[in-house]
Amino acid sequence: MIFVGFGFLMTFLKRYSFGAVGFNFLIAAFGLQWALLMQGWFHSLDYTDGKIKIGVENLINADFCVAGCLIAYGAVLGKVSPVQLMVMTLFGVTLFAVEEYIILNLIHARDAGGSMVIHTFGGYYGLSISWMLYRPNLDQSSRLQGSCYHSDVFAMIGTLFLWMFWPSFNSAITDHGDGQHRAAINTYLALASTVLTTVAISSLFQKHGKLDMVHIQNSTLAGGVAVGTAAEFMLMPYGSLIVGFCCGIISTLGYIYLTPFMEKHLKIQDTCGIHNLHAMPGVIGGIVGAITAAAATESVYGREGLVNTFDFEGAFKDMVPTRQGGHQAAGLCVAICFGIGGGILVGCILRLPIWGDAADDNCFDDESYWEVRDEALQDYEMLMQTLHVLCGSR
Amino acid sequence: MIFVGFGFLMTFLKRYSFGAVGFNFLIAAFGLQWALLMQGWFHSLDYTDGKIKIGVENLINADFCVAGCLIAYGAVLGKVSPVQLMVMTLFGVTLFAVEEYIILNLIHARDAGGSMVIHTFGGYYGLSISWMLYRPNLDQSSRLQGSCYHSDVFAMIGTLFLWMFWPSFNSAITDHGDGQHRAAINTYLALASTVLTTVAISSLFQKHGKLDMVHIQNSTLAGGVAVGTAAEFMLMPYGSLIVGFCCGIISTLGYIYLTPFMEKHLKIQDTCGIHNLHAMPGVIGGIVGAITAAAATESVYGREGLVNTFDFEGAFKDMVPTRQGGHQAAGLCVAICFGIGGGILVGCILRLPIWGDAADDNCFDDESYWEVRDEALQDYEMLMQTLHVLCGSR
Amino acid sequence: MIFVGFGFLMTFLKRYSFGAVGFNFLIAAFGLQWALLMQGWFHSLDYTDGKIKIGVENLINADFCVAGCLIAYGAVLGKVSPVQLMVMTLFGVTLFAVEEYIILNLIHARDAGGSMVIHTFGGYYGLSISWMLYRPNLDQSSRLQGSCYHSDVFAMIGTLFLWMFWPSFNSAITDHGDGQHRAAINTYLALASTVLTTVAISSLFQKHGKLDMVHIQNSTLAGGVAVGTAAEFMLMPYGSLIVGFCCGIISTLGYIYLTPFMEKHLKIQDTCGIHNLHAMPGVIGGIVGAITAAAATESVYGREGLVNTFDFEGAFKDMVPTRQGGHQAAGLCVAICFGIGGGILVGCILRLPIWGDAADDNCFDDESYWEVRDEALQDYEMLMQTLHVLCGSR
Repeated sequence: MIFVGFGFLMTFLKRYSFGAVGFNFLIAAFGLQWALLMQGWFHSLDYTDGKIKIGVENLINADFCVAGCLIAYGAVLGKVSPVQLMVMTLFGVTLFAVEEYIILNLIHARDAGGSMVIHTFGGYYGLSISWMLYRPNLDQSSRLQGSCYHSDVFAMIGTLFLWMFWPSFNSAITDHGDGQHRAAINTYLALASTVLTTVAISSLFQKHGKLDMVHIQNSTLAGGVAVGTAAEFMLMPYGSLIVGFCCGIISTLGYIYLTPFMEKHLKIQDTCGIHNLHAMPGVIGGIVGAITAAAATESVYGREGLVNTFDFEGAFKDMVPTRQGGHQAAGLCVAICFGIGGGILVGCILRLPIWGDAADDNCFDDESYWEVRDEALQDYEMLMQTLHVLCGSR
Repeated sequence: MIFVGFGFLMTFLKRYSFGAVGFNFLIAAFGLQWALLMQGWFHSLDYTDGKIKIGVENLINADFCVAGCLIAYGAVLGKVSPVQLMVMTLFGVTLFAVEEYIILNLIHARDAGGSMVIHTFGGYYGLSISWMLYRPNLDQSSRLQGSCYHSDVFAMIGTLFLWMFWPSFNSAITDHGDGQHRAAINTYLALASTVLTTVAISSLFQKHGKLDMVHIQNSTLAGGVAVGTAAEFMLMPYGSLIVGFCCGIISTLGYIYLTPFMEKHLKIQDTCGIHNLHAMPGVIGGIVGAITAAAATESVYGREGLVNTFDFEGAFKDMVPTRQGGHQAAGLCVAICFGIGGGILVGCILRLPIWGDAADDNCFDDESYWEVRDEALQDYEMLMQTLHVLCGSR
Repeated sequence: MIFVGFGFLMTFLKRYSFGAVGFNFLIAAFGLQWALLMQGWFHSLDYTDGKIKIGVENLINADFCVAGCLIAYGAVLGKVSPVQLMVMTLFGVTLFAVEEYIILNLIHARDAGGSMVIHTFGGYYGLSISWMLYRPNLDQSSRLQGSCYHSDVFAMIGTLFLWMFWPSFNSAITDHGDGQHRAAINTYLALASTVLTTVAISSLFQKHGKLDMVHIQNSTLAGGVAVGTAAEFMLMPYGSLIVGFCCGIISTLGYIYLTPFMEKHLKIQDTCGIHNLHAMPGVIGGIVGAITAAAATESVYGREGLVNTFDFEGAFKDMVPTRQGGHQAAGLCVAICFGIGGGILVGCILRLPIWGDAADDNCFDDESYWEVRDEALQDYEMLMQTLHVLCGSR
């Protein structure tokens, strides 16, 4: 199950060809190893012999860890060099490990699907870096920023993969049994509801009522992000449907209005729109989780269920649901602070002129970092030029 | 396992780009929620508190339910509007729930892989709708009805996905243990045998002995459809191989001769050839299932096995295999009747001029419903026109 | 799990469009059935009634069997006819069954991930056939031997699929429990480490430091091949990382220097570079396995673990690890001999002029065996010619 989980993270950004899929692969492989070390130091260090014990759970956790960095990559896609990505991943994984330790162990918030720990953190981490690396003349690369017909279909492969494995992802580290089933079903319903809303909103707000592929590719997944925290709680099917419904609206409207606004006025260039797919739904997920936790009662969960679901054991034996709600909210704040703070810090480092990033008119172009042997494409461009000359000369 | 099952249904028709993959996604998400409600009312309604209990089995069943509608979508692909698809799904899921209830619960036929319940019903449902929505001037869109090189490769992704998850699909709701293993192995062998036959027939019946990608994409799956009902019975490996062999022949010949014949003389325009991939193999599957059930003896299955395999319990305690065979055949008839009857009914509704379907010369074109921002494609078309002018002027 | 395992074998060579994916499908389906028979005769024949019992393990084994032939297909891709492929598969599966029987049962070597049995054998089998079928004028087809932008992205789908299911593949037939976990984790780490090394080497050895997509697609998987044998042993995480590191270097350098050298001086035309991805890493895997086995001690494994891991039971009750290391090495030699010997033999048969293979200037072209209805492509080529005329006439 873990390798499938990991796999879908890999296909995540496939729509931007070599750089997207190749660097994604690189980040993931690098991040995994570093995450295993970091998580080993924080969680599974055996103090008797100074060795880190690795099990399958560690690999799943490392996957989750890397997920945050892959999300952040979405914001800077096409604008940074591979070396910058490695630095970003190095710091991202480290920050993630600390943040996860604080939220899950110290604050004792629950976050099975990682709405806060992964998506909120990863989203704001990426956005802050993108803000620090603002390129005022990025429009020189605008000819390459769009999609082509086939690349959109490639992206749909990624979307469908994520969509179908999201329930497994959200339920991977929940308690086995009831909690796991609940997480899978809640996620499923939220996702299904988001798809409908996204299609409706996309059609309503575009001229001529046409659908936009970007929304279908991204916003359809927002519901899965937003039920991440609350999925293992008693959200009830109608709760999941409502969360999915709201997220579909917010995420799609975000693509239509917020992303252009952010680029123009806030100087945040968000290539993949991770603000709409991860940051906002992540925050919503955190809030929904806090409310659901605070509203938990013994009559719905049963005493046993309450203890199992929220892990009221050990030092947190005397916790009550209302206070747990507060802890969840505190966890969300920590995730946002780590995301923004860490992003600004790492952004400063990445602004140093030593990383070999591409010029403004060279972004979103695989030619910078890859051997592209595509004669057809070159032929085609030559052809276009020749024809422009031909047509001009008449 | 269920989410994987669902996922492959999604990739099913990917070869027709945005509309295929996007509307497929939409239908599935919408159908799922409606199917959960329908199946809840029919099967898992808790009368004490009026609530529907949802478990993972319900999600699997809802998937199966949606599968029928996605099959039907194959017949009308590119010729209907999204609103028509929603209506088609709404009625399709409702009809499916009633039909499934009659076949499985009232008639007590067994249908693990859904040869009758899903494929026969879905196939004839789609074909009837396509017949009702006959477009005499569809050849005005014929320039867009073919495939291009890359779209054929995309379709192969769908084929391979379906192929590899088909054994899991056919064995998903069988009895655990022996029955499940048997279903998986039988399906596997039937599929392997169909591939060989399809390649052979495709090469034999084409001029120059060349293979046709359409056959490889579709007919290779027909064997899996045809063992759907009988997979959990004692079909024996050679039985599966024979079924696969026959289906490969029939399905491929169907594409070569039957689909053009149906379009020309029966006024059924079957875009994806679902008659060859689902309807015919589904009927064959139903017949094979009836024969295999009727031929079951205690010496092969054991008393225990007979009861487990055919569920001879409760009201059906005194059932014998020969009568079970009759029930299977009755189930097949019900599936066909529901498919054709339901399709004609829904087709009438869809002929109302309020659904905003595309004009005859605008079918198979994503431009009608999607924002297509493919400058390269537009450039290319402009280029072709310019060149025709240039060449003409010399 | 098995069907997923099989699925990834299918997607394996998708980058060469119809022929790659279609013939791969054909070989696999044909090989599977033949392998079931062959393995049935060798392993699971029930002598009492002369029937072969088929279970899920047999299907997994048949998959493994076919894997060898699919690897060999990589070397001759685009240069042989479907009939030649069938012959190659027929003999390949037969040789594989004999070789596997000798290595695993007679020599009693352990080879969970098939470094020796599958990859070394398959690699050298394919290379020898390619050597026998040397085409001196293959450069007449060189215009078709490259990749295009989208086909490279298709290939990445295959790479990522293989990558993510490799740990499952290597651990599929190990002992359940500890051994299986160990195999998965070791493979995972080796793969992650290979990715980093491949990117580094690819960037270092190319002019301008650009990355080459061919290396990312292939060499990133070499680590998984190389830990195949040793994965279930106590390789330790650092051992896996080192193996992955070395393989990444060797495999990438192989693509840069060895493949051109082999083509020029050894007359081996290796289309997919299987020497770098399968043959060499397979041999390394065999050697690593032999060393790891020889170095096994009771203090690390425990008496129980030693017996379980190396299957020191029955006739091999008195085996010691050092001798097991020798047996592993003997197994590797057998695999190489069978691969080269079998390949030369089958190559001789395939040189008979009765198989209808394509002419030297027609290789790597789907037109030979497939109906290609790609008007856009034809238009495009016509266009290019017209334009060359136009430009020339000015």
